[in-house]
Amino acid sequence: MYLILGLLLLASVALNLFFITNQYYLGTDQLKSQKLSWSLKAAAEAEAVASISCSGHGRAFLDGLIVDGKPICECNTCYGGSDCSLFSPDCSADANSGDPLFLEPFWMEHAASSAVLISGWHRMSYTFYDKSFISQQLENHVRRVHEFVRDEQVSYTVFYFQLYKFQTNYFENKRFKFDEDTSLSSNSSYNTEANVIEFEAVSQGPLVKVIYDHAYYWPHFSAIPSPANEDVMIFTMSKLTGHAGSRIGWALIKDEQVYEDMNTYISISEMGISREAQLRALQLVKAILNGNGTDIFDYAYEKMSYRWKKLSEIVSLSSRFSIQEIPPLFCNFFEKVRGPSPAYAWVKCEREEDTNCNEVLRAGNILGREGSLFSVEDRYVRLSLLKSDYDFNLLMDHLSKLVAEENGAKTA
Amino acid sequence: MYLILGLLLLASVALNLFFITNQYYLGTDQLKSQKLSWSLKAAAEAEAVASISCSGHGRAFLDGLIVDGKPICECNTCYGGSDCSLFSPDCSADANSGDPLFLEPFWMEHAASSAVLISGWHRMSYTFYDKSFISQQLENHVRRVHEFVRDEQVSYTVFYFQLYKFQTNYFENKRFKFDEDTSLSSNSSYNTEANVIEFEAVSQGPLVKVIYDHAYYWPHFSAIPSPANEDVMIFTMSKLTGHAGSRIGWALIKDEQVYEDMNTYISISEMGISREAQLRALQLVKAILNGNGTDIFDYAYEKMSYRWKKLSEIVSLSSRFSIQEIPPLFCNFFEKVRGPSPAYAWVKCEREEDTNCNEVLRAGNILGREGSLFSVEDRYVRLSLLKSDYDFNLLMDHLSKLVAEENGAKTA
Repeated sequence: MYLILGLLLLASVALNLFFITNQYYLGTDQLKSQKLSWSLKAAAEAEAVASISCSGHGRAFLDGLIVDGKPICECNTCYGGSDCSLFSPDCSADANSGDPLFLEPFWMEHAASSAVLISGWHRMSYTFYDKSFISQQLENHVRRVHEFVRDEQVSYTVFYFQLYKFQTNYFENKRFKFDEDTSLSSNSSYNTEANVIEFEAVSQGPLVKVIYDHAYYWPHFSAIPSPANEDVMIFTMSKLTGHAGSRIGWALIKDEQVYEDMNTYISISEMGISREAQLRALQLVKAILNGNGTDIFDYAYEKMSYRWKKLSEIVSLSSRFSIQEIPPLFCNFFEKVRGPSPAYAWVKCEREEDTNCNEVLRAGNILGREGSLFSVEDRYVRLSLLKSDYDFNLLMDHLSKLVAEENGAKTA
Repeated sequence: MYLILGLLLLASVALNLFFITNQYYLGTDQLKSQKLSWSLKAAAEAEAVASISCSGHGRAFLDGLIVDGKPICECNTCYGGSDCSLFSPDCSADANSGDPLFLEPFWMEHAASSAVLISGWHRMSYTFYDKSFISQQLENHVRRVHEFVRDEQVSYTVFYFQLYKFQTNYFENKRFKFDEDTSLSSNSSYNTEANVIEFEAVSQGPLVKVIYDHAYYWPHFSAIPSPANEDVMIFTMSKLTGHAGSRIGWALIKDEQVYEDMNTYISISEMGISREAQLRALQLVKAILNGNGTDIFDYAYEKMSYRWKKLSEIVSLSSRFSIQEIPPLFCNFFEKVRGPSPAYAWVKCEREEDTNCNEVLRAGNILGREGSLFSVEDRYVRLSLLKSDYDFNLLMDHLSKLVAEENGAKTA
């Protein structure tokens, strides 16, 4: 039922540099009034790991493998070696998966508001105090985000753990319509920026509910022309905050009976999402709502919009490749007409002989996802624009070379 | 496939008292050499919430509902009011569910080693660095616990999220054999301390693998006479550390192909357990392995053993009620013969007319789980011994009264 497409983009600024320039201090009064004790060790460990520099081309995690007493550096795309200092200029640009790392730098810049400390005795029970499996606070805060973005109307909410990516791909094959004459998105009910899969009902009638995947219905990727008001709309933390690893999604449901049924199914099959993931999601959503609340939307839209412009510039020099056209649209959230910032580009190979566009791109060291996986011709390839800055820059480099070759300026 | 039976017992010492008497300090050198910055706010918030006293009869959580700017107190059994100061002496003893809160005080006493701080950018990706969905460190550390306890032999490991409680109850109905002549546990393959469900194969042959639920195969509940060496053995964090809310389980599997198949299924259906839950589980397992590594096993066995003795004392005064007999057994882990410490008591109503034992107990304000849910006579009731100290003490109080009534000393 859930669609996981990915996004991607990563820290271009060394983590270490951030910690030097952007230190967070509690007010002196606050620190004086509260003497920290049992939490200090965890805090110190987290900061110690974050301060491992990895040459500015990677980062270490608390649960990374330990070598010489320290978690190993996990390097950004094209960097390697134990300290990520080795650059591999010829590595492939992997634009296949949709890993939403484009928001990683945002969270590094909001380190204090997004960090959360979990005590050893936090929520050990099967249930919350109200006997439910879901944090009421999390639900309240997710609703506040929706109210803030004004992208949906009042409805019931259920939270899931499971996202059936491959099962969704199956549905995708059956349901996804690719309109090659205009753009991918002409079947979309709310705007023309692609990346929206609708599970259209085969049957009709009062008992048939249509499930709308609104994973990408955020100002990051899409104009929000009006509140959505469908029977069942599904969302994922992955595409709101970029935390694909948390495995949290939710659905907004109009019909009470459908809500009850889904809730019962989820309660029985999962007994709720891990309490740790719920607590952290709550902290992230609180961080989003901090201040005037527009930070993450501004950041995400700027970044995705920049990427689309950059891609469009390169493709405009080419007669061999084209991408989908996306008209500007009025956005209720930004209160202005805004340009496109889609999560994915659909590249079309225009030459008659280039029937397998994925192979053409692969020869240029670019890994995309072939159209046939989306029930369209292999003349189309989907390129993910959501990964790290490292991944995106590499993609642009390789694509520029391909286009330059096409124009006779062969590169070495 | 997974069995969730519960355990239970809770903080008898006020959390607040603990924080006064048991402060943790980093070495001075360590504190000087590392100036904390962005982590301080999260640490301060966690300690502030933990210091809410709730009259010593409850605790607050970071994700609790907020009233007057503070998370609300969540009260222990029989306590209520906004500060948990109201005692309700006549409330029921709920021994139905198996919420493993008996270990909550252990983690309060090990606050520093079990706390973990999650940064906003921790593990946002769909995958770990090795493209897997499971932390290699977590797997390594869980294996170390098994090696330490010497309860299993070398095998492959998969980690799950999903525990099919209700689906398991279905299997339980079909497979669970209750031997009413001796004790519940005579069908167990490794010892005679109950709480072990074996999913016995209906079919036989080289392709048939038997799944053994080893959720309770820890020194907490059971003597460990020898390493287990079954085809497929499943475990859960819930019954090792008491963290039912984390929803983490794992299986140890002998056959490589079975391992591959299970791994593929889990990867497709779940894309791994929430990274937050994995990180916290790693921290808890590290805390278990700290020092000489026996702390949690000593603590859990002492507590469960004490509870069984207490229950046995009360039942020994009764001719109306009996409980299963569990002989002492040699335990490889403790290197001695040890008495029983089961997770559940099976109470039998001995009077001919007491065919519904659950009703008899309910009249005495005790809520158990009726035998028919386990395919045995309703003359039997399962009582959970794993909940909080509050729950257990209440259960003993109500049971004592019932037995006293039986012996003519009517209580008011």
